[in-house]
Amino acid sequence: MFDTIIIGTGAAGISAALTLKQLNKNFLWIGPKNLSFKINSAEKIRNYPGLSSVSGKEMKEAFLKQINDMEIEILDKQVTGVYDLGDYYSVLCGQDSYDSKTIILGLGVESVKPINGEIELLGQGVSYCATCDGFLYKNKEITVFSSSKEFEHEVTYLASLANHVNLIPLYKDVDINLENVTIFKGMPKSIKKENKKMLLDLGNNNILESDGIFMLKASISPSVLVPGLEDKDGHIVVDRLCNTNLKGVFAAGDCTGRPYQYAKAVGEGNVAAHSVNHYLSELKK
Amino acid sequence: MFDTIIIGTGAAGISAALTLKQLNKNFLWIGPKNLSFKINSAEKIRNYPGLSSVSGKEMKEAFLKQINDMEIEILDKQVTGVYDLGDYYSVLCGQDSYDSKTIILGLGVESVKPINGEIELLGQGVSYCATCDGFLYKNKEITVFSSSKEFEHEVTYLASLANHVNLIPLYKDVDINLENVTIFKGMPKSIKKENKKMLLDLGNNNILESDGIFMLKASISPSVLVPGLEDKDGHIVVDRLCNTNLKGVFAAGDCTGRPYQYAKAVGEGNVAAHSVNHYLSELKK
Repeated sequence: MFDTIIIGTGAAGISAALTLKQLNKNFLWIGPKNLSFKINSAEKIRNYPGLSSVSGKEMKEAFLKQINDMEIEILDKQVTGVYDLGDYYSVLCGQDSYDSKTIILGLGVESVKPINGEIELLGQGVSYCATCDGFLYKNKEITVFSSSKEFEHEVTYLASLANHVNLIPLYKDVDINLENVTIFKGMPKSIKKENKKMLLDLGNNNILESDGIFMLKASISPSVLVPGLEDKDGHIVVDRLCNTNLKGVFAAGDCTGRPYQYAKAVGEGNVAAHSVNHYLSELKK
Repeated sequence: MFDTIIIGTGAAGISAALTLKQLNKNFLWIGPKNLSFKINSAEKIRNYPGLSSVSGKEMKEAFLKQINDMEIEILDKQVTGVYDLGDYYSVLCGQDSYDSKTIILGLGVESVKPINGEIELLGQGVSYCATCDGFLYKNKEITVFSSSKEFEHEVTYLASLANHVNLIPLYKDVDINLENVTIFKGMPKSIKKENKKMLLDLGNNNILESDGIFMLKASISPSVLVPGLEDKDGHIVVDRLCNTNLKGVFAAGDCTGRPYQYAKAVGEGNVAAHSVNHYLSELKK
């Protein structure tokens, strides 16, 4: 049983992890080991105090060095759900699960909103996680929507299993050249299920039929990931101490609202870590 | 008329200034040019993301470099009051005043609570600002309480004016050797005024009599500085967007409450700057 599980390796998650390490807490940190893709992609950051005019790449390197210096580990998995089991929470990563007294959500903000049918058919033909559910589609037809280049290794993995992949990338310069991958342009409109077949509407009468659909996105809608979590206009509702409506669940960074800034995310990650510490000391009483 | 005046050169003020500069706002920044004394005094900071295991001195140097790189000026004065004049605010620094549409308070937290009589006699024999009010006590007797070594140049200045100074330092290694300065040990208990004389009670029947009392402290109680400002348990009450109860007045950093951490202060400074920006754009409508 962990004291806390931090979900997300963006600025908020990093700040929470550094502070919890300093507070000597027993925590698990889950997310991309190479840190959130968004950190890397910033061109120039001038207003983050302490690092004068750095690129996203330089900032990422400074963060990774510090995480390494403090001997903090990252579990490189994708969280597929967080479940309230009364006294504790269970965090699912596909087949694996981890138990914790508290949770810190540093999920970032979803730039791609769910389309019609996506949430309703999640787990019934729609998946967010290639490594979790890919095996279900061996020698079958699948459709993959990918919001960024960072998911190309997952697309390659899916192509190694499936008979054929329809790929809908939301970025330029696609670097995948596989015989069984066909690339489509467009923005998915809706998903339907008919006679066990998944139908994805790409607009202009272009309907892609397959056995399963993967929606690969940098972040998943918070209330889908954590059932019962209160959100508003796509952001998790928190108070000044980063408490969500769920006892022992805290949120920090872009997922709690604007401004979408490193400084703000880092501040909230720190506050969430201190709130976890306070919550745990109250539990002991 | 400034868009905003930032008061305080701690982590919150720095973060607000960097962001307002980036947003191209016309702002004035008031506080110690060498940055808040507290930044300098931290021994080792390990959990501020981006700077792996730095001393307070190294952190201060990184901040100063960045402020310099972005060509931001600091007005090295002490704010003695902030007054609501209806459509705008007037910030007083002794004899000088500056007008602004909005205010960002990055005041830090007062480690020394006001003593009995201090607030009541402010401006009637009690002063917080040596450079503002020192001239009133030429060739007179004064009592000076000093919470830290950073105020020694102010004590020296007061000693150059006054006939005699009673100094009560709240720190060791006092570096003042002047004929007309007598050093007392103890913690002030209360202040009274009798027959135009100021009486400071040091406990153990030790009463210091003088013409004026200077209370030199790193930060002043927010509601004393800004009449009408709502505070609770010594902290300014703010919402998640750093709004105080006064329209156009925002607060950030330690002055808004715990945790007293660089990351939290930097985050709130950023949020306050964005809130100012939003407020100004609403004003224009």
